[in-house]
Amino acid sequence: MENEQFLNQNDFYQIVLGRRSVKSYDPSVRISREEMAEILEEATRAPSSVNMQPWRFVVIETPEGKEKLAKLARFNQTQVSTSSAMIAVFGDMKSVEYAEDIYSKQVELGYMPQEVKEQLLAAFKPSYENMPQRDMRDVVLIDSGLVCMQLMLVARAHGYDTNPIGGYEKDQIAEAFGLDKDRYVPVMLISVGKAASEGYPSYRLPVETVTTWV
Amino acid sequence: MENEQFLNQNDFYQIVLGRRSVKSYDPSVRISREEMAEILEEATRAPSSVNMQPWRFVVIETPEGKEKLAKLARFNQTQVSTSSAMIAVFGDMKSVEYAEDIYSKQVELGYMPQEVKEQLLAAFKPSYENMPQRDMRDVVLIDSGLVCMQLMLVARAHGYDTNPIGGYEKDQIAEAFGLDKDRYVPVMLISVGKAASEGYPSYRLPVETVTTWV
Repeated sequence: MENEQFLNQNDFYQIVLGRRSVKSYDPSVRISREEMAEILEEATRAPSSVNMQPWRFVVIETPEGKEKLAKLARFNQTQVSTSSAMIAVFGDMKSVEYAEDIYSKQVELGYMPQEVKEQLLAAFKPSYENMPQRDMRDVVLIDSGLVCMQLMLVARAHGYDTNPIGGYEKDQIAEAFGLDKDRYVPVMLISVGKAASEGYPSYRLPVETVTTWV
Repeated sequence: MENEQFLNQNDFYQIVLGRRSVKSYDPSVRISREEMAEILEEATRAPSSVNMQPWRFVVIETPEGKEKLAKLARFNQTQVSTSSAMIAVFGDMKSVEYAEDIYSKQVELGYMPQEVKEQLLAAFKPSYENMPQRDMRDVVLIDSGLVCMQLMLVARAHGYDTNPIGGYEKDQIAEAFGLDKDRYVPVMLISVGKAASEGYPSYRLPVETVTTWV
């Protein structure tokens, strides 16, 4: 691709403003597990509510995994078949189970004194544990949206393109990949690969249409 | 700030991996409406489901606006009082009202032939118009999460820092700023300003904890 050879992979504006949804990839390109883990590690630097990091990823990269996914993403066969990997993103409704781990580690790393950890956990853990399902769903979807955006941008810094996909069988995806559907809320699929054809440009509403100044 | 003078404002990894939640800003710094519009324009290059762009922003920058907000964000008084602006992000449950506008513009700009526009609108508009509220809420929260992440990163490219805030009076925020609370779902507040003190580093769960490979 013409575009690609000019992409400076650390150029913020080229990465952000040059991003388009790419649906067709070079099927011969594999992304190593090491590199994909690096992409995910960078993506998960995204912030989240009380740092609960409720995002969960199923990286679907084998022919068997893709075959299973293809049935649940019938409008997106090109992405499934040509991408290096499809990432199914979920939000964990019980992310609070990691609260103790996360905050202990923050103390251990010197990011936070023990007293602050205890104050913070006392302040949010009970409300998180007793949060109505609907409110928790809001939180995990918003936080997962954050990580998905960062993931798509980081993928470009690694030389790949992506397509965020919302139209798939959300009611079946968790169970298909062995996850408890009541715990893991589907967020989106993200295809990742080396672009084989460019994405289309797309129009955005003017800022004044979507913004009020107060 | 020491950090700041070394920040190359187009360095992707410095922007992304150097981002921390900053809660305290130089209160003397104003962001012009032109620059804030530019930040929002760049943020809204984020993708969204069928390009409906359901994000809406209330940029709160006047003393009167901030006074109103302060009552609804009592755990975040420092951000409200010292930031250049607080951005209240909402998701529009009726974004489909812009479908015709958006897709006509895509045709006008040569991004899409007229027939494709008609096929696409016919394919998604009825289902969007009749989507159960709960499903629509999921869509607008995820899409708004995407734009919020891009907004926080773009703000850094402009030399500012941010803090995403989820703990505020979500049930009162729409009406307080004259929006229909049934139509506009609160997503988060984002404070924006010139950092006066550095944010804290924070721990992330290892990739293997949040990822399954299939």
